[in-house]
Amino acid sequence: MSAHVYKKVELVGSSKKSIEDAIETALAKANKSLKNIDWFEVKETRGHVVDGKVGHYQVVLKVGFRLE
Amino acid sequence: MSAHVYKKVELVGSSKKSIEDAIETALAKANKSLKNIDWFEVKETRGHVVDGKVGHYQVVLKVGFRLE
Amino acid sequence: MSAHVYKKVELVGSSKKSIEDAIETALAKANKSLKNIDWFEVKETRGHVVDGKVGHYQVVLKVGFRLE
Amino acid sequence: MSAHVYKKVELVGSSKKSIEDAIETALAKANKSLKNIDWFEVKETRGHVVDGKVGHYQVVLKVGFRLE
Amino acid sequence: MSAHVYKKVELVGSSKKSIEDAIETALAKANKSLKNIDWFEVKETRGHVVDGKVGHYQVVLKVGFRLE
Amino acid sequence: MSAHVYKKVELVGSSKKSIEDAIETALAKANKSLKNIDWFEVKETRGHVVDGKVGHYQVVLKVGFRLE
Amino acid sequence: MSAHVYKKVELVGSSKKSIEDAIETALAKANKSLKNIDWFEVKETRGHVVDGKVGHYQVVLKVGFRLE
Amino acid sequence: MSAHVYKKVELVGSSKKSIEDAIETALAKANKSLKNIDWFEVKETRGHVVDGKVGHYQVVLKVGFRLE
Amino acid sequence: MSAHVYKKVELVGSSKKSIEDAIETALAKANKSLKNIDWFEVKETRGHVVDGKVGHYQVVLKVGFRLE
Amino acid sequence: MSAHVYKKVELVGSSKKSIEDAIETALAKANKSLKNIDWFEVKETRGHVVDGKVGHYQVVLKVGFRLE
Amino acid sequence: MSAHVYKKVELVGSSKKSIEDAIETALAKANKSLKNIDWFEVKETRGHVVDGKVGHYQVVLKVGFRLE
Amino acid sequence: MSAHVYKKVELVGSSKKSIEDAIETALAKANKSLKNIDWFEVKETRGHVVDGKVGHYQVVLKVGFRLE
Repeated sequence: MSAHVYKKVELVGSSKKSIEDAIETALAKANKSLKNIDWFEVKETRGHVVDGKVGHYQVVLKVGFRLE
Repeated sequence: MSAHVYKKVELVGSSKKSIEDAIETALAKANKSLKNIDWFEVKETRGHVVDGKVGHYQVVLKVGFRLE
Repeated sequence: MSAHVYKKVELVGSSKKSIEDAIETALAKANKSLKNIDWFEVKETRGHVVDGKVGHYQVVLKVGFRLE
Repeated sequence: MSAHVYKKVELVGSSKKSIEDAIETALAKANKSLKNIDWFEVKETRGHVVDGKVGHYQVVLKVGFRLE
Repeated sequence: MSAHVYKKVELVGSSKKSIEDAIETALAKANKSLKNIDWFEVKETRGHVVDGKVGHYQVVLKVGFRLE
Repeated sequence: MSAHVYKKVELVGSSKKSIEDAIETALAKANKSLKNIDWFEVKETRGHVVDGKVGHYQVVLKVGFRLE
Repeated sequence: MSAHVYKKVELVGSSKKSIEDAIETALAKANKSLKNIDWFEVKETRGHVVDGKVGHYQVVLKVGFRLE
Repeated sequence: MSAHVYKKVELVGSSKKSIEDAIETALAKANKSLKNIDWFEVKETRGHVVDGKVGHYQVVLKVGFRLE
Repeated sequence: MSAHVYKKVELVGSSKKSIEDAIETALAKANKSLKNIDWFEVKETRGHVVDGKVGHYQVVLKVGFRLE
Repeated sequence: MSAHVYKKVELVGSSKKSIEDAIETALAKANKSLKNIDWFEVKETRGHVVDGKVGHYQVVLKVGFRLE
Repeated sequence: MSAHVYKKVELVGSSKKSIEDAIETALAKANKSLKNIDWFEVKETRGHVVDGKVGHYQVVLKVGFRLE
Repeated sequence: MSAHVYKKVELVGSSKKSIEDAIETALAKANKSLKNIDWFEVKETRGHVVDGKVGHYQVVLKVGFRLE
């Protein structure tokens, strides 16, 4: 694995349901245009509030993938 | 929206169930005394441990609301 | 409580299900060798990606326990 | 000055014109409800974009004032 | 304790004597208007200098209290 | 807005005039190749010095845009 | 000294008296099970509050010792 | 350029007018005693408040210059 | 140089030999698809361990290049 | 005060007695060569350990003074 | 790999030769008492100076290993 | 050693060869004007890129020396 080069891109996924679902939303989107996605790192968790409740979660994450 | 001023307050919500529930607990409390709550930012996630399991989650968050 | 001394160790729990479950996995492991576990602090949330979905979550946490 | 106690609150000012004007907007608002405002510290500078230009600046700042 | 919500406020205490005394000064002030103060966290330690000596210490701290 | 995914890219804008102008320079460039730009976050402010004066400002910013 | 290897462990000492005493409390405890303790680094200073006064200081510190 | 050595010094410039002017004030001062000033990095932006308005901006910056 | 705009991308280079070689590996890869690469900034240095030795170094770096 | 320029230098004071005394030791030294010292900021607190006790405290601080 | 738990310990390796050698020194030591070492993360690079040259490098690193 | 006072200065060394050589370059320069240099701390590692290769490394380091 030693000569591999990876790239990280920063995405923001959102979801009305949960933090995990916001992560999956971002990964699903990334998967449409990127190959070899390998890992993610959560950088920030935040969200919008509607009527005193979480309207949707917003998770900022870095997604790492191997360059071919 | 350009002349608006927002304030952020720092709260700690807790829950036996989940990180999301701890966030909702803090927002529900904030909603009783604050108007126009708009967003939150998670700053820390931690918790107490009882018998080797999560006793309750504690989520430190900043809550932003528009000043009137 | 004032003369107590606590120690913190850094663990990484993983789970296919959720962030909360990854935390519980680490705590369950810690509980086998440590007594008096009192709290945890999440330091990083990340994970591996398989086929554009979360393969498993990895949560880096510090676990605090009282020294006897 | 040695026995004084100060409090800091976190505000977000906004302006279509400039970073400085966003700061002044937040201070003007704070000045309506707080006495003895003494200093501010910029914590974040960000903004919304409209048609490829800055729509308005948003400056997150802490405002310090002396408690009486 | 799991359903409790806490709030943190940021204060700056000062003292000519010591860092500990600056903390106590801030707590004493906070105690006049806040109930259920539970913990503090030191965020910054600084001070003014007079004639090459500490004129007074300034300790920035967050004070956490339970909301009722 | 809950199912949206955003991407952030990191740019460095420069200007001889002001910090605000350096931000606008970066946004104008980004706007040529990116659609749906929504916000920016200033990460660093620096600059080159010529003859003891600011030669030009360099502002490092993250630019967020919605993926379609 | 060049081939030495050191280890750092993270402890939390507490004291009703002072920050310095909380440090000494942690070091005294560490000294019972560790040899060759060489230095410490304060990472956090916090404490519990009782009746508007410091109940006890809690100092999070890393303790470095030489491995034999 | 590869064998050059640079030094950075930390200055605080102030101005009643703007953040940019506070930077220029610091650079002008530095230019009186330092040669070969090459770049600056803004580390903090803050200021004093007078009557609910910015009294003057204070910009903490690092100034880099080549050693001869 | 004042009207230039730069972009930074985040890469992870790896090497069995050294930290410097891991940096070169990432730059060589970047050079295949990017023009006008100007500088890099090391953000993290880490690696995999095999049989108690460094299997390969992994260096996370930002690579800056001028947009045309 | 608006046209003043300040410089900050970084010093490490040490003391066998206390954190406060280590600060005073550094300030006393600084006062021999610098005029117009105005404030200090503690950046790190650490120390050497001898026989399981604090041998001496080492406090890293920035000292700010007005340039004439 | 999803149910695995890892632990991280913090070590300081030193070497007269190079940063890489200081890392190897720490790993070799860790390998004597720990099984399943998997990765390391460099946290700090520093060193002692003798006669204006590097006397030895000191690299602070976290070493991660799988708990059985 | 307890009454000693140290100063830290921030330098940027550069080298076409390696990170270690950039550190030595800065130390050699510092050694011409400073006595009693005792340690260094690497703060940033970066470099310029020429034709897709490292043109030269730039290492930002703090150099600590004892004041007499």
